Amino acid sequence: MKNAYELLEERFGRLGRLEGAIEILQWDTQTMMPKGSVEGRGEQLATLRVIAHELLSDPQLDDLFAKAETLSLDGWQSANLYEMRQAWRHSNALPADLVVAISKATAACGMAWRTARKEDNFAALKPHLEEVFNLVRRQGECKSAALGLTPYNALLDEYEPGVTTDIIDGLFDDLAAFLPDFIDEVLAVQQAAPSILPLKGDFSTERQRTLGLKMMGVLGFDFDRGRLDVSHHPFCGGSFGDVRITTRYSEESFAESLMGVLHETGHALYELGRPKPWAFQPVGVSRSMGTHESQSLLMEMQACRSREFITFVAPQLREAFGSNGEAWAEENLYRYYTKVERGLIRVDADEVTYPAHVIMRYRMERALVSGDLQVADLPGAWRDAMKEMIGIDVPNDRDGCMQDIHWIEGIVGYFPTYTLGALIAAQLFEAAKEANGDILPSISRGDFKPLLGWLRENIHQWGRRYTVDELLNRATGKSLDASIFRDHLKARYLPKER
Amino acid sequence: MKNAYELLEERFGRLGRLEGAIEILQWDTQTMMPKGSVEGRGEQLATLRVIAHELLSDPQLDDLFAKAETLSLDGWQSANLYEMRQAWRHSNALPADLVVAISKATAACGMAWRTARKEDNFAALKPHLEEVFNLVRRQGECKSAALGLTPYNALLDEYEPGVTTDIIDGLFDDLAAFLPDFIDEVLAVQQAAPSILPLKGDFSTERQRTLGLKMMGVLGFDFDRGRLDVSHHPFCGGSFGDVRITTRYSEESFAESLMGVLHETGHALYELGRPKPWAFQPVGVSRSMGTHESQSLLMEMQACRSREFITFVAPQLREAFGSNGEAWAEENLYRYYTKVERGLIRVDADEVTYPAHVIMRYRMERALVSGDLQVADLPGAWRDAMKEMIGIDVPNDRDGCMQDIHWIEGIVGYFPTYTLGALIAAQLFEAAKEANGDILPSISRGDFKPLLGWLRENIHQWGRRYTVDELLNRATGKSLDASIFRDHLKARYLPKER
Repeated sequence: MKNAYELLEERFGRLGRLEGAIEILQWDTQTMMPKGSVEGRGEQLATLRVIAHELLSDPQLDDLFAKAETLSLDGWQSANLYEMRQAWRHSNALPADLVVAISKATAACGMAWRTARKEDNFAALKPHLEEVFNLVRRQGECKSAALGLTPYNALLDEYEPGVTTDIIDGLFDDLAAFLPDFIDEVLAVQQAAPSILPLKGDFSTERQRTLGLKMMGVLGFDFDRGRLDVSHHPFCGGSFGDVRITTRYSEESFAESLMGVLHETGHALYELGRPKPWAFQPVGVSRSMGTHESQSLLMEMQACRSREFITFVAPQLREAFGSNGEAWAEENLYRYYTKVERGLIRVDADEVTYPAHVIMRYRMERALVSGDLQVADLPGAWRDAMKEMIGIDVPNDRDGCMQDIHWIEGIVGYFPTYTLGALIAAQLFEAAKEANGDILPSISRGDFKPLLGWLRENIHQWGRRYTVDELLNRATGKSLDASIFRDHLKARYLPKER
Repeated sequence: MKNAYELLEERFGRLGRLEGAIEILQWDTQTMMPKGSVEGRGEQLATLRVIAHELLSDPQLDDLFAKAETLSLDGWQSANLYEMRQAWRHSNALPADLVVAISKATAACGMAWRTARKEDNFAALKPHLEEVFNLVRRQGECKSAALGLTPYNALLDEYEPGVTTDIIDGLFDDLAAFLPDFIDEVLAVQQAAPSILPLKGDFSTERQRTLGLKMMGVLGFDFDRGRLDVSHHPFCGGSFGDVRITTRYSEESFAESLMGVLHETGHALYELGRPKPWAFQPVGVSRSMGTHESQSLLMEMQACRSREFITFVAPQLREAFGSNGEAWAEENLYRYYTKVERGLIRVDADEVTYPAHVIMRYRMERALVSGDLQVADLPGAWRDAMKEMIGIDVPNDRDGCMQDIHWIEGIVGYFPTYTLGALIAAQLFEAAKEANGDILPSISRGDFKPLLGWLRENIHQWGRRYTVDELLNRATGKSLDASIFRDHLKARYLPKER
């Protein structure tokens, strides 16, 4: 006879496998599915999601949770039970009519957004976005009641459990005070330097794909347990032990695809390192969106834009694209990969300006949820924030407050995780280098084993066994600290001896 | 408030979508999945199948069936309700312990088979195959009780509902009396003719793939609703409106891949023509395995080995492979594609000898189920049957009674559907040509629209609305008649005026 905890493991094991199947179908939708199959695939996915929702939100689980909590459980089991109960609370927090209303409102808002953005017509978007934020506010209130958190923290909890606005405010205020002047300084240094030589070569898809696969292998990707394919929006998907990343190729330049592949490989290595005994249980999945982003940014930004990596990759690039000359020398490539620009678009931003984009979105979405900011005032607030944070004038709403899809889809509480990821990445990389002096020298030889070993040991294998704060304290000896990221930026962009 | 029939449609609609998702995951397993993901994928698929089984075998459905049968339903709804109830009966026929026992025994038998076949050691396979047939007999008895059919007919009903041994015996006895002498005659004619010139050219995978895609388009495949990929065993899979066929390439010869693609395209066109309003309901799926095979054989054997198709395809082949000369002339290609041989292996057989392979398997599996034949006596029975039906000596069991995987996997009642398909194909093609005199001339111009139109009208759009016998009577004016297939073979292989 199974006890309450074992019954819960059985239920959540079924749910985990079902979610894995959904992930593979979503990957297929983006990479393989013929375009005429959208409708049927939508119905398949909706059916699987309804079945998953029924498995998770079952009211009978509440009794099992209560019984399981009286049992003697080990650390992993207790953490697993906690994650089960939190998932169940999230799943039951919203009344069915609100779920339907959000689904309809975000679908309508998405339709309106595609046209309004193209036509730079914020007025056409406004009523839809107002409706979405009305419902997001109701969502925040329902989740607040279910989770015992403030409404915004309750929304945030879906993406970054255990982290609250108190923590984020401390970190982001620090960065917000630092970044505007720092950006000015970095640009002054870069403008005084010789200009970057343009990179020219044969950037055929096949050559880029060959290089991408090679670099995935260098970072430690296991091709017996994953793939690389093409999709319009690059992502890391798949399921446990079958991790699939995507990229897209432009034959004009190899840069976006290569850095994208390195970024997604960082995500993939995290997924491939999840604890196997807990593969299909809530405690076995990645810790949070910020933690996930830390793994991609650690690879892309910390490791693969380091001088050491450029030393390793420069001859590889020359060989891959049959190129040569001064433009392909290490120094020019390094400057190319660490160039900073004031730009309008978040997804095109470099690592220095990116946090500024995120901080202003975080502050605005909090104000939109609390009611301190009205949707009608968003375009003006956007212009002011861009001027203040990044020092740039916003010429239109298309490339201003209408550029991102998150709010359109009702996703609020996600934006801060990008920059939490950047801060975590800097802190982990710093600790890893201190723990093992061979990590950077190895990277310059194309050997990522010491780095990956440290990440496996300190992050990947733990799933959700610990909170983000516990993970950081165990791995780095302290809680998240913005000064490490600041110091990283200063060392890379304002070097003392150059 | 939904009535009983509407509730059933809802349930089976969910099941149909879930089964579509399973089909896509199975396709992925064969084509895209990295090899290290076998275990996790197995668990995902097992979970989805358990959920599907629970949806289908729910005892509460019995009451809904009874209530729905008192309602006033239209023809499609009545046929749908009948199919639902039959599916439920099949699903509930077997006790859980028997399902588990079959699953274990076939897994063990499969393991033993891989080694025993390689080592030509029937003795090592024998105890496993005996156990499988013991369980198949129990399965037949359980299904017999549930469906009110004889045990073998009850097994057959899963693959070819509505068709019984009485019908098959009549058809197969006719062919069995005809084939041995006919094979002798055909071989005498072919041996008297000039020998077939070998086909040489650049059979690179890329050239073969390009030709295959072109020919799929010629037959009427819609690439917005399907794909062509590579797998070890070619198949037609996918789900409604997303039909995916596979092939494999040998750079030694283009023949297997091309004819395989045409065959699978026949299956795919059937799937693409299923009735959209019933896409996810039991009445909306293909009629039977024999009907499905008729669609692939109609394309591959009837249409695409006709003189008219060879006339069309000969210049296409020369262009595709940069070849020329007498070997690539129409006459040699036609003889190449209609060559008959006495062979040991069913899957390599031509359309003349193939039915002989099937008939002997059908007779043997019936005798194995009834107990008239013992597994121990299979190798001898196989040698006798091959000698009698195909006139060939069997040198070993590897290429004799151990060549097929069907019985190893406990699949009994499937073999006859291959030849039922060949007979249905001949009868449909004959009726189509009579109904529309432009069908054959169009094929010689590479225009399959008249043929596809007739198949859509007479077969594809009907799903399971009618039985096989009703479909044939509506489409051809008579029940299945082996003489039409015989006449086809005579006309193609013993032409009067050549």
